[in-house]
Amino acid sequence: MSELRYDPIRGRWTIIATERAFRPHEFRRRDPDHPGDVGACPFEYGNEETTPPEILAIGRDHRPANGPGWQVRVVANKFPALRVEGELTREGVGIFDRVAGVGAHEVIVETPHHMRPMADMDAGEIELVLRAWRERLVDLRRDPRIRYALIFKNHGREAGASLFHPHSQLIATPIIPIVVKGELQVAREHWHRKERCIFCDLIHQERALGDRVPWETDQFVLLEPFAASFPFETWILPRRHLHDFAYSPDETLADLSRVLKDFLSRIRTLLSDPPFNLILHTAPSSHPRIGQPQYWTTIEHDYHWHLEFVPRITQIAGFEWGSGYSINPTPPEEAARYLRDTPSTGRESRVESRE
Amino acid sequence: MSELRYDPIRGRWTIIATERAFRPHEFRRRDPDHPGDVGACPFEYGNEETTPPEILAIGRDHRPANGPGWQVRVVANKFPALRVEGELTREGVGIFDRVAGVGAHEVIVETPHHMRPMADMDAGEIELVLRAWRERLVDLRRDPRIRYALIFKNHGREAGASLFHPHSQLIATPIIPIVVKGELQVAREHWHRKERCIFCDLIHQERALGDRVPWETDQFVLLEPFAASFPFETWILPRRHLHDFAYSPDETLADLSRVLKDFLSRIRTLLSDPPFNLILHTAPSSHPRIGQPQYWTTIEHDYHWHLEFVPRITQIAGFEWGSGYSINPTPPEEAARYLRDTPSTGRESRVESRE
Repeated sequence: MSELRYDPIRGRWTIIATERAFRPHEFRRRDPDHPGDVGACPFEYGNEETTPPEILAIGRDHRPANGPGWQVRVVANKFPALRVEGELTREGVGIFDRVAGVGAHEVIVETPHHMRPMADMDAGEIELVLRAWRERLVDLRRDPRIRYALIFKNHGREAGASLFHPHSQLIATPIIPIVVKGELQVAREHWHRKERCIFCDLIHQERALGDRVPWETDQFVLLEPFAASFPFETWILPRRHLHDFAYSPDETLADLSRVLKDFLSRIRTLLSDPPFNLILHTAPSSHPRIGQPQYWTTIEHDYHWHLEFVPRITQIAGFEWGSGYSINPTPPEEAARYLRDTPSTGRESRVESRE
Repeated sequence: MSELRYDPIRGRWTIIATERAFRPHEFRRRDPDHPGDVGACPFEYGNEETTPPEILAIGRDHRPANGPGWQVRVVANKFPALRVEGELTREGVGIFDRVAGVGAHEVIVETPHHMRPMADMDAGEIELVLRAWRERLVDLRRDPRIRYALIFKNHGREAGASLFHPHSQLIATPIIPIVVKGELQVAREHWHRKERCIFCDLIHQERALGDRVPWETDQFVLLEPFAASFPFETWILPRRHLHDFAYSPDETLADLSRVLKDFLSRIRTLLSDPPFNLILHTAPSSHPRIGQPQYWTTIEHDYHWHLEFVPRITQIAGFEWGSGYSINPTPPEEAARYLRDTPSTGRESRVESRE
């Protein structure tokens, strides 16, 4: 079984993922940058029996689970970092700490179409993916062992993808991740001091200034952050204060899917289909936990959910890893200008529905 | 001019490196994994006039600077993230903070021989590289604008190298990097509470247990950390409490160079010449600073310098970036066993001296 281990010197947790165990000669390269053999793709329409059983299917027709007839499909990861089964033990070992690898690791197959990356989907298809994200978040929060569920998408080999077929993932952990904890704490302290949301303040300041805002819609604003870690790193934030993605109404998801369509197609044009990560930052569940301080049940309303997009066209090298600094060769003001000036392809190509 | 920008939400600094500025179409891939055209290599023996002027040359014969006749050569980076010239201004901008990009970015050319990676050097050659590191640290600490100098080595494209010729780098910053600050603080608090060094405690516990210690020498111990972030991540620590690499006596550098020779040649055998980063973690300068609290002048003796080696054979993907967790598929106990069982090639091939 996998386990979470704490490094007391770095103050960070690692998942020692024994189910994904590699021996030295097995660190070979897979190539998700090319379509490969569609017939052998486990996420391909018609190959449903090659994945673990279906957790959720969006748009399923009258046909039974674990076969064709779906538009978005969620299954357990075949090589999970963490598993739902098992008791959540926590123990100290000398100066170390370890926690059983209990959690969840799911794959959201975004489309039945192997060759249809999110930038090519129409907004309606993207909206179904966002609904699947929302539904999985709501469901997993019923499990009292889980503290946080992180949803992310890796596109391209250098961004960590291992399969070409468009998909996103969810990893749920028994400990709130340190990056999330840090942001929650900053938001809470800001609110405590000023009775305002730090993200709302950020949006206010950046919209007034304008030079780091590529564009905005009714409900969302795009932002090249002042201290962007990567060239063309982009945050997509709801303009109104909303702390939790899981509470998003349908019309918010509809607007967000149009933003994503527009943004991802511009980025593809601008950077020639770069590898990227897209990460959902949202407040954790609000359920009170046995043995947890009240803290975690009240903090969440101070937060402001958003998406972070990071193209992986520069490296995290020795300096970045050893220092915690990023080196970004593209000022965000320039990135915003390039994004604004790139025409949206807007190509909403209808595809034949499968079968 | 470059500048350092602080992200108030993430609590991290980014270097916006305008001297390395890229336009979108310029994010092309270089290939440091293959030797390329030796004649065009700026670090090649005989091409000295193609680099910025020499800062240091180790083993220089009677011939003048900026020409042949050296064994290790240090020059300024041609596309520096930070520059020595300029005034160190610090200012707030709305909710943001920025600092002028003053610092240093140097390249340590480790050998005159293009095709001689560190794993092939003999220990005597590696020792000269370590002496260059030590000498540059000592020299840069004389500059009161510089708070920290980080020395690191990127090997292979996926580890961030952009040139094949064996080299390491130094980036000196006007702010202590957050990763270093975190470790200094942990070490200080541990010492404050227990009057012991946390790294010494770690070494004591791990040597007694043994299963994460590949091997040790007179002066050094190798350790696969309990919560290793990457498969075969390895720390090389002095067995005695030594806080500052810059104070290392020659015999310590000689022992370390034998350890590195042995370790890097085993790793190359085991993982087929993997891309890797090697990072020096050491205490910052002890000079008191104008306007700095006494804190930074007293903390350093609590620290324990060491080298961190991270092979880059797994990806930092969306989950890792968004959470701060690492996922490591190789338990460190297994990695230690593989390292122990791999014979050291020990091949100390003498090469013809250049010219």
